Amino acid sequence: MSTPHKPLVILRADPHPPERIFRPDALARLHDRFTVVEPDTEEALDRALSDAFAVIGQPDLPAERLARAGELRALLNVEGNFFPNVDYDVCFRRGIHVLGCGPAYAQAVAEYALGLALDLARGISREDRAFRAGRERYVSDGNADAVLLRGADVGLIGFGNLGRSLHPLLAPFRPTLRVYDPWLPPAVLREQGLVPATLDETLARSTFVFVLATVTDDSHHLLGERELALLPDGARLVLVSRAPVVDFPALLARVAEGRLLAGIDVWPDEPVTADDPARALEGLVLSAHRAGGIPDAFLSIGDMVVDDLTLLAQGLPPARMQAAARELVGRYRNRPVT
Amino acid sequence: MSTPHKPLVILRADPHPPERIFRPDALARLHDRFTVVEPDTEEALDRALSDAFAVIGQPDLPAERLARAGELRALLNVEGNFFPNVDYDVCFRRGIHVLGCGPAYAQAVAEYALGLALDLARGISREDRAFRAGRERYVSDGNADAVLLRGADVGLIGFGNLGRSLHPLLAPFRPTLRVYDPWLPPAVLREQGLVPATLDETLARSTFVFVLATVTDDSHHLLGERELALLPDGARLVLVSRAPVVDFPALLARVAEGRLLAGIDVWPDEPVTADDPARALEGLVLSAHRAGGIPDAFLSIGDMVVDDLTLLAQGLPPARMQAAARELVGRYRNRPVT
Amino acid sequence: MSTPHKPLVILRADPHPPERIFRPDALARLHDRFTVVEPDTEEALDRALSDAFAVIGQPDLPAERLARAGELRALLNVEGNFFPNVDYDVCFRRGIHVLGCGPAYAQAVAEYALGLALDLARGISREDRAFRAGRERYVSDGNADAVLLRGADVGLIGFGNLGRSLHPLLAPFRPTLRVYDPWLPPAVLREQGLVPATLDETLARSTFVFVLATVTDDSHHLLGERELALLPDGARLVLVSRAPVVDFPALLARVAEGRLLAGIDVWPDEPVTADDPARALEGLVLSAHRAGGIPDAFLSIGDMVVDDLTLLAQGLPPARMQAAARELVGRYRNRPVT
Amino acid sequence: MSTPHKPLVILRADPHPPERIFRPDALARLHDRFTVVEPDTEEALDRALSDAFAVIGQPDLPAERLARAGELRALLNVEGNFFPNVDYDVCFRRGIHVLGCGPAYAQAVAEYALGLALDLARGISREDRAFRAGRERYVSDGNADAVLLRGADVGLIGFGNLGRSLHPLLAPFRPTLRVYDPWLPPAVLREQGLVPATLDETLARSTFVFVLATVTDDSHHLLGERELALLPDGARLVLVSRAPVVDFPALLARVAEGRLLAGIDVWPDEPVTADDPARALEGLVLSAHRAGGIPDAFLSIGDMVVDDLTLLAQGLPPARMQAAARELVGRYRNRPVT
Repeated sequence: MSTPHKPLVILRADPHPPERIFRPDALARLHDRFTVVEPDTEEALDRALSDAFAVIGQPDLPAERLARAGELRALLNVEGNFFPNVDYDVCFRRGIHVLGCGPAYAQAVAEYALGLALDLARGISREDRAFRAGRERYVSDGNADAVLLRGADVGLIGFGNLGRSLHPLLAPFRPTLRVYDPWLPPAVLREQGLVPATLDETLARSTFVFVLATVTDDSHHLLGERELALLPDGARLVLVSRAPVVDFPALLARVAEGRLLAGIDVWPDEPVTADDPARALEGLVLSAHRAGGIPDAFLSIGDMVVDDLTLLAQGLPPARMQAAARELVGRYRNRPVT
Repeated sequence: MSTPHKPLVILRADPHPPERIFRPDALARLHDRFTVVEPDTEEALDRALSDAFAVIGQPDLPAERLARAGELRALLNVEGNFFPNVDYDVCFRRGIHVLGCGPAYAQAVAEYALGLALDLARGISREDRAFRAGRERYVSDGNADAVLLRGADVGLIGFGNLGRSLHPLLAPFRPTLRVYDPWLPPAVLREQGLVPATLDETLARSTFVFVLATVTDDSHHLLGERELALLPDGARLVLVSRAPVVDFPALLARVAEGRLLAGIDVWPDEPVTADDPARALEGLVLSAHRAGGIPDAFLSIGDMVVDDLTLLAQGLPPARMQAAARELVGRYRNRPVT
Repeated sequence: MSTPHKPLVILRADPHPPERIFRPDALARLHDRFTVVEPDTEEALDRALSDAFAVIGQPDLPAERLARAGELRALLNVEGNFFPNVDYDVCFRRGIHVLGCGPAYAQAVAEYALGLALDLARGISREDRAFRAGRERYVSDGNADAVLLRGADVGLIGFGNLGRSLHPLLAPFRPTLRVYDPWLPPAVLREQGLVPATLDETLARSTFVFVLATVTDDSHHLLGERELALLPDGARLVLVSRAPVVDFPALLARVAEGRLLAGIDVWPDEPVTADDPARALEGLVLSAHRAGGIPDAFLSIGDMVVDDLTLLAQGLPPARMQAAARELVGRYRNRPVT
Repeated sequence: MSTPHKPLVILRADPHPPERIFRPDALARLHDRFTVVEPDTEEALDRALSDAFAVIGQPDLPAERLARAGELRALLNVEGNFFPNVDYDVCFRRGIHVLGCGPAYAQAVAEYALGLALDLARGISREDRAFRAGRERYVSDGNADAVLLRGADVGLIGFGNLGRSLHPLLAPFRPTLRVYDPWLPPAVLREQGLVPATLDETLARSTFVFVLATVTDDSHHLLGERELALLPDGARLVLVSRAPVVDFPALLARVAEGRLLAGIDVWPDEPVTADDPARALEGLVLSAHRAGGIPDAFLSIGDMVVDDLTLLAQGLPPARMQAAARELVGRYRNRPVT
């Protein structure tokens, strides 16, 4: 099926239409260097696998199917999460690269998270609404609770892709940055000028908290009622990673009491029901899972995929996508974004 | 009136009540080191001037009044703008320091301007409003026009206090930063990694434009209809300095056409009339002159005032407030913020 | 041999005595969490391998020996280079982590490289020698060839650990940073504000060149006579990675001609012979393989080792040492540092 | 003498020949915009003063001479220090700008100071000398006292032009930066992430000390025997400002004892005598007043002069040179550099 010189690549980009993640020049580079097949049935996929050098996408790949893919060198996930539909153990044993596109979204999420934090710090969307309603308050009258980010105590819950992208954006504000991440030794944080801290300490001492942790069995409701109660009154919380990390009723209750302001991009059930009382909470900035999925982020996925496939075909390691960690890939409990 | 060791300082902080600009410890330091009088009539002010070492505030000080103030070493303006009610020429000739508190607001304005820019980049307040109205769009559906600030072409109109405070906040986004400032030689900008540019070039090549210029006779309607038409479609404009710099009807027309998104903090007439159509424009983030006047900014004025008075009393130059430039102080056309 | 709860770790740190790479508290942590054995014969090593969770050091581990080590989860190299005495394919197939301590040296090398560059820019060691000989030249007299690093054209040959550590140290000088690294796609460099370039372009346009590449079959004499001739006259070259990357006779000839200044830390044969003419070249800063091996760097190896072993024992991926790339580990042609 | 449109500028650049401080294009700009006279006698100077808009250089300007210069708007000192040969009081009273070219040298001095610090941290020039003498020590053998700058405790004595230029170069090393500067309130330092400290605390807690203070009556022997004894053993001291700030015999004694390493660019008497024992001290990096006077620094003086004259002629304030502070200009005790 493939020519001798062009390795075979299977393209199964759904849920993305290919043009969402590939710029024209990336698609041209892909076709120039690889034989690309887009199997539209499971049988066609099975057939293509036997010669495949790589799979772009996240089709089901149990052990028996992988057994058939003797030439496979890489899986390039373009959805952003790793799901349990792949036998990752087999991949790691065979040295098949398991690559994720998380870095493609990280800058978009980081910029959005900073935008939410500045909105919460200064009441930007709240006062825009008031202005539209003819209730605007000039100069200092609407600024009673406004605070600077400069010099603030800031907590990061989780320090993976998102934290690493957010960190440089926060740096010029010279915050004290406390980080809770149980997967990282303190030295990794200290070397970057961050303060390693327990979850409780991070929450208790932070005026701004960014929730950046992914979902595992361990992080479900990591921020429960007890933990949220540790936050100082008037704190600002930004949630841009995964909803199950936070106990939503506890979070919304605290916002309703006026003790917390929160910018929320992910929700336990999406779409949110029409009568969800969150829709009317003044202390929220409401966002519909919009932090990462912007055109530029999607298109950078294709660039990364083609760059890394090109390296792999040259016998070099991938350099742009993120290698899944053998120890972690089975722990994630994310659901597909729909 | 003053003791031999404590220089006399006149405190006339209006429009601020003193407690808005002085933290308790700053006020304590002030009274500890200086004899402070708060004249409540013009006659009392006249009397106090004869021994005054410094004036905190911006009372009328024409030449004849200054003539009476033979010991005067400094005027410390706490309003943020210089008005034509002082004979600055006399001050400069006598070596009286004329100091402004602009730097106290600069960080607050810079953080706010960045917040507005990120809101415009990602539709944060627009989609919050939609969410509250039950019209939210999930993931990519509401992101069609969302853009990154990273790597963007960014223009700064004016590079004074505000520009210098905003610059480090923008730096980690690695933008191309074009600056139009006719008061600065290109080398000053280049040394900081900025690209000096004409006004037209700055506008024509920038996706994000921050209007940071103050008002003079030269900068009135600096951004008129012709200039605004240079902006690329889909540009984002942040206005946080002074309204007269921009031709508002032209600006709002362009937003209404969907060719420009704008975050506006200052308005030609404040309060804005109830029926101003700007209140209903989807492409705006509306803000009621809130960028600078936050509690932390006000309180830093008092810190600066006491720090600089202390230096002056030691025979040292001031180090925190901004010395007015002899050549510029008469050019400003700002009105008091009320 | 091991207790049920403490995984067995083999410690074979040579060429380092353990106290060089382990601070007392790191050694205490190691012994607290692991059963540590230090086999002094090959037989003892063989016996220990059967229960070993990890090996600290770089003993010979051919396939047959690895076959005996059924529990092995990680090899933690503490020498800085990967040698061909391990069957890496077996390791990768079995998911044994192959970890290197290169990051421990990177900061030390980066600081040293910057020190050499500033010395070459300003003639620090040359003029110190002149001063000691009574031939010092005051103020501008000795500065005819002195140049700033600020705003300079700087080239990096290779962008691995060393380049990533040097980059932030160079950033405040606002150089134009061209990078030649054939293992990285251009986007990786562009995202960091670097200019991807060919080798020839990097050399031809750089006033300062840092040679940071490791040795492979491809990089032997990467900088030969032809390439060195591309450098502008008066360029400064810093060599801190591996000597075989450069054609030394061509390099020294160019320095002798007065067309190049060079700081050299690594030499084709060490120790350098007593009569090597390089010892007398005025245009050199001579250094005896000292860039990385400082006490702080050695001691950070132990910290990294214990941190990563601790993570691995918790079922988490390592976070401090550098995972060897399957595609690269067999390409290195470094020799042990003695 | 001058045309109606071209203001008259007196050029008296000595000790610099004009071509040292003016690039051809700067000189062309100067002549294009101004009528330039270069009076070669005091009488010619007197005559020229009567119409002069500005003086480039530092001729004697006592009150009686200034009285003759009724049009004078600016003195542009191109030597780097302010001397007592000008009646500064008259200048300030008349609003004549008194501008210094200190900023032209600051980057050169900052880069040099960092180079000296890295040399002292790692023994670069010491080991280069050993290598040339056939006594080089490989790898760790010569590194027993080598330390990182990363994370170090660093003290700055004085935080003027030099400190502000050095600060960003040190920032990526993430040091703890203590600063002693009695002319600055603590808030100025804290806002930049620096730790304000007393002189004793700065010395006692710093591994690296940069002496950046200028000479006044107060700073003569600021670092005397008592103060130097506060430094921790093994500290590194860099002296690049003025020799009288330090008690040299005490400094050299401490270096001779092996308790201090020092990089010294300025000396109590220059040239240093041939038999000065400092020439043989192993713990020194010896430098002959070379930190600032490099070609690029000299040439930037001319750029600054022309840029600021151009602004002044447009009725704008200068933006590149440094305005002398009325309170300080009479305190300096620098001598001309010859």
